Amino acid sequence: MAVVSPTLSSVKQALSGAIEAGSTVTVRGWVRTRRDSKAGLSFVNVSDGSCFDPIQAVAPATLANYESEIRHLTAGAGVIVTGTLVPSQGKGQAFEIQATGVEVTGLVDDPETYPIQPKQHSMEFLREVAHLRPRTNLFGAVTRVRHTMMMAIHRHLTSEGFFWINTPIITTSDAEGAGDMFRLSTLDLANLPRTDGGKVDFRKDFFGREAFLTVSGQLNVEAYCLAMSKVYTFGPTFRAENSNTPRHLAEFWMIEPEIAFADLAADADCAERFLKAIFKAVLDERADDMAFFAERVAPDAVTRLENFIARPFERIDYTDAIEILKNSGQKFEYPVAWGVDLQTEHERYLAEKHVGRPVVVMNYPEAIKAFYMRLNDDERTVAAMDVLAPGIGEIIGGSQREERLDYLDRRMTKFGLDLDTYGWYRDLRRYGTVPHAGFGLGFERLLCYVCGLSNIRDAIPYPRAAGSADF
Amino acid sequence: MAVVSPTLSSVKQALSGAIEAGSTVTVRGWVRTRRDSKAGLSFVNVSDGSCFDPIQAVAPATLANYESEIRHLTAGAGVIVTGTLVPSQGKGQAFEIQATGVEVTGLVDDPETYPIQPKQHSMEFLREVAHLRPRTNLFGAVTRVRHTMMMAIHRHLTSEGFFWINTPIITTSDAEGAGDMFRLSTLDLANLPRTDGGKVDFRKDFFGREAFLTVSGQLNVEAYCLAMSKVYTFGPTFRAENSNTPRHLAEFWMIEPEIAFADLAADADCAERFLKAIFKAVLDERADDMAFFAERVAPDAVTRLENFIARPFERIDYTDAIEILKNSGQKFEYPVAWGVDLQTEHERYLAEKHVGRPVVVMNYPEAIKAFYMRLNDDERTVAAMDVLAPGIGEIIGGSQREERLDYLDRRMTKFGLDLDTYGWYRDLRRYGTVPHAGFGLGFERLLCYVCGLSNIRDAIPYPRAAGSADF
Repeated sequence: MAVVSPTLSSVKQALSGAIEAGSTVTVRGWVRTRRDSKAGLSFVNVSDGSCFDPIQAVAPATLANYESEIRHLTAGAGVIVTGTLVPSQGKGQAFEIQATGVEVTGLVDDPETYPIQPKQHSMEFLREVAHLRPRTNLFGAVTRVRHTMMMAIHRHLTSEGFFWINTPIITTSDAEGAGDMFRLSTLDLANLPRTDGGKVDFRKDFFGREAFLTVSGQLNVEAYCLAMSKVYTFGPTFRAENSNTPRHLAEFWMIEPEIAFADLAADADCAERFLKAIFKAVLDERADDMAFFAERVAPDAVTRLENFIARPFERIDYTDAIEILKNSGQKFEYPVAWGVDLQTEHERYLAEKHVGRPVVVMNYPEAIKAFYMRLNDDERTVAAMDVLAPGIGEIIGGSQREERLDYLDRRMTKFGLDLDTYGWYRDLRRYGTVPHAGFGLGFERLLCYVCGLSNIRDAIPYPRAAGSADF
Repeated sequence: MAVVSPTLSSVKQALSGAIEAGSTVTVRGWVRTRRDSKAGLSFVNVSDGSCFDPIQAVAPATLANYESEIRHLTAGAGVIVTGTLVPSQGKGQAFEIQATGVEVTGLVDDPETYPIQPKQHSMEFLREVAHLRPRTNLFGAVTRVRHTMMMAIHRHLTSEGFFWINTPIITTSDAEGAGDMFRLSTLDLANLPRTDGGKVDFRKDFFGREAFLTVSGQLNVEAYCLAMSKVYTFGPTFRAENSNTPRHLAEFWMIEPEIAFADLAADADCAERFLKAIFKAVLDERADDMAFFAERVAPDAVTRLENFIARPFERIDYTDAIEILKNSGQKFEYPVAWGVDLQTEHERYLAEKHVGRPVVVMNYPEAIKAFYMRLNDDERTVAAMDVLAPGIGEIIGGSQREERLDYLDRRMTKFGLDLDTYGWYRDLRRYGTVPHAGFGLGFERLLCYVCGLSNIRDAIPYPRAAGSADF
C-alpha cells in the first residue's frame, strides 16, 4: 500500500483548483457510485470526507484489475486512485482523475445488504447504523459543519481573550437538582454497604460521598472568571430527563462564557458577537455543505444565517415584551401575563413577527429565575436575558451574576440552599467581588438550527436521547 | 460602574507596547500588592489574568478615595484603574499607569485570613482552595498554558484536515474493563428493582441496561475515521482506579487522533508533528509563563521543549530496544526480556541515555497489547508504538488497527470478547476496509511535562484524584 506519496491529495485539494491540471495525484477514500460506459470505461466517484463533493475517477478497461476488481466496486468500497488530474468533461465538478491505477483496499461484503446505499435513507434508519451514517452526504456535512462551528467558537473566544476552563464533569454537589442528574458509583449494587441506620453508606463509594454527573460548569467557572477575567466552559453536560422528545439529549455539549467587570448589557453584546462570529465562519468555510442543507433540508438555511448576521439584534425589556405579546392580537396556547416565563410560541412571535430578527429579552421576574442572578433595583426582576431567534426561539440564556454577598445570601436562603455547601461560591463575593455576567447555550441545539435538523439526535455523532442507548 | 470604556485595555495590551504612551487607559482586575511611599503615593499592582505580569498603577494621595479606600487595598481586592499609560520609572515592566481614578468594586473581608497572600503557598494548601488558586502566579500560568496547548491541538489538527468528533461519554459497553469504570444510574439505591432471579434489574435503569463512563473514544471514532479520513477525539475520560498516586486522575482529558490509509510509520510521523506543533505554540505564545516555570518550577522547562522540537525523533524496534536495554550495563528494578512491557525506568533510559531525545519504540509483542492492534507478518508482534520522551518516559501510545476481519476475529476470540457485541466494529472491516492507525495521550500528563508539575492534580482546573472529591 502506498501510504505516503509525494502526489497525495485530499479530494478537497484536488477539486479546489490548487493543483495544476496535468499533475499526477493520488486520492484515497470510499466509492460513492460506479457507472460503466459502453466505451469500456468506468466512472468511479470517490469521497474522503474532506469536502461535500466526491471526485470522479475515470478508469479505463486497460487497467490490469479492471475486470477482476474495478468492475466489482460498489458503494462503500475502499480505494486508492492514482492518475492525472484533468479538467472535467461533463458537468458537475471542475476536475476529474484519469486513473492510471485503482488499488482496492476493501470491497463491500454482500453489497445488496450494505446499509448505506446511494439513495435517500430515513433518519430513523440511519440512527440505527450510527457507525456508518457519516458515510452519507447528510451526516458528512453535519460532521464538517459541527467541526467548523466548534473551531469557530474556540477561535472567536480566544481572539477576545477568553481562556477555556475544563470544569469538573463529576460533581459531589447535587444542589442544582439531583432529580435530573445521573448518579455515579463504583459500589457493588448486589451488595451495597450500609450504615448502622441501614442507609446506603456512600462513605464507602469512590469519592467518599454521593457523586453525580454535572448539569452545568457555571458555578465552577465563575471562580476562574474572578481571576482570569474572561473564561468559558465547553464540554459535555448531562441531564437524566425522561423526556423522550426530539429536543432533549441525555448527553450534550454546552458552552458557558463568563466575563468579569460586565453587566447585562455587556453580556448581551458578547452573546451577539459570539453567534455572529460562528455563523459567519459556517458561511465562509462550509459553503458546499450549507448549499446542500438549503437544497435538501431547509430552503432558508443560508439566508437565515445571512440575515442573522446582517443587522444588530434588538433589545427588549421583559416587561415590554409582555405588553407586546398581550397587544399582539395573537392567540397563544399559553396565556401571557407579567410573571410567566416565555414559551417558544411567545419567543418566536417576538423574533419572527414583532422584530423580524434576533432579539434579546432582558430583566425577567426574579421569581422564575435562578438563585445566582443579580437582583435589579426594582427588586421584582433580575438581570437575566434570553436571546431569541427566528425559527427557533430561545437560543442563549444568560445573566449578570449576583456579586453582592448579602443579596446572594438572601436569595439562596429563599431558594432553600445551604450556605455552607456554597461556602466556596460565597467566598468569591467576600474576596474582591466584581460585577460579572455570563451565558450558556447547548451546542447541538445551535447545530440543529444551522443545518435545519429537526431531531437533536442527528446533531450528535452518536445518537443518544432519553431512553436510548448506544448500539 | 464603567462597564464599557473606549480606553478599556487588558493588562496584556497595556504592557505590550501596542498602546501609545500618554494614552488614557482603563484596566480592571485584582490587586496583587500595594506599597505606600513616603511621598504620598501608593503603588498598586493589578492583575487581570491576561498575562503573567501585573501592571503597576501609581495612585496619588490627591485621589478623592485615597484615604478611605486606596490605602485599604489588599491582595485580592477588585479594582478599576483609569489613568495615563506612561513608560515605567523603575525596573520591571516597560509601562505603568499614572492613576487618575481607582474604583474599588470589592475589598477583601478579613485580609489577614484571605487564603491567597502574596507569598509562596504549598501545593497541598492550594488544592484545598481550588476556587482561589487561579489567582496565584503559578496557577494563572498553568491556566494560560493549558489554554494555549488545547488551542494548539485543535489548530494543528484542523490545519492537517482533521475533524473533531465528540464520541459518547456514556457507554453501555463495558467490554474494555468494567472493573475500572464508573457505573451510571438513575435507579433508587434504597429500593433497587429486582428481576425474578433477585438480580438488579437494569432494564428499569435510564438506558434500559447497565451504563458506564467511557474510558476511551477510540473504537467509536474509528467509525468516523472510515468515512472522514482524519478525525480525533478530545474530551474527558474516566478511570475509577483506586490508585491514589500523583500520576492518576479519575477524570482527565484525552486526545485520540485516528487516520485512514495509514500504517504505523505514518502514525509515528503524525504523532511527532503533533507534539512539536503544540510545544512550538507554547514557546511562541507563552514565553512569559514559561520563563516563570523555568525560574521557579523546573530549570529546564524551556530548553526541554526547544530540544524536543529541534531534532527528528528516533525510531527503534521493540526487539532492538530490548537488546539495547540488556546490553546497557544498567541495573533496572524490573528485569528486561523479550516479551515484557517497558517500565518507566526502561523508557527513560532509552530516551535520555541511549538516544538523548524523543524516541518511538515500535512493534511490541502481541501478547501484551490490545485486541485491536494489527498483527505483524512475524505473528509475534503487533504494529504498536509508544513515543518516549526524556524526563517522563511514555507520552503517547498508538497503533495501526487490525483492518482484516479474519485477523480481528481471531484476536477478539483470543481475548475472550463477544463478536456480536462488537458487530458494529466488525462492520467497519466488512464494508470497504482500509488500513488505519491512531494514537492517544492524556492531556494533563502532557501539561505536567510542559510546566514541570510533579502532581497531576495541579494540571486540572479543579483537583480531583482517586479518593478525593470536589470542595
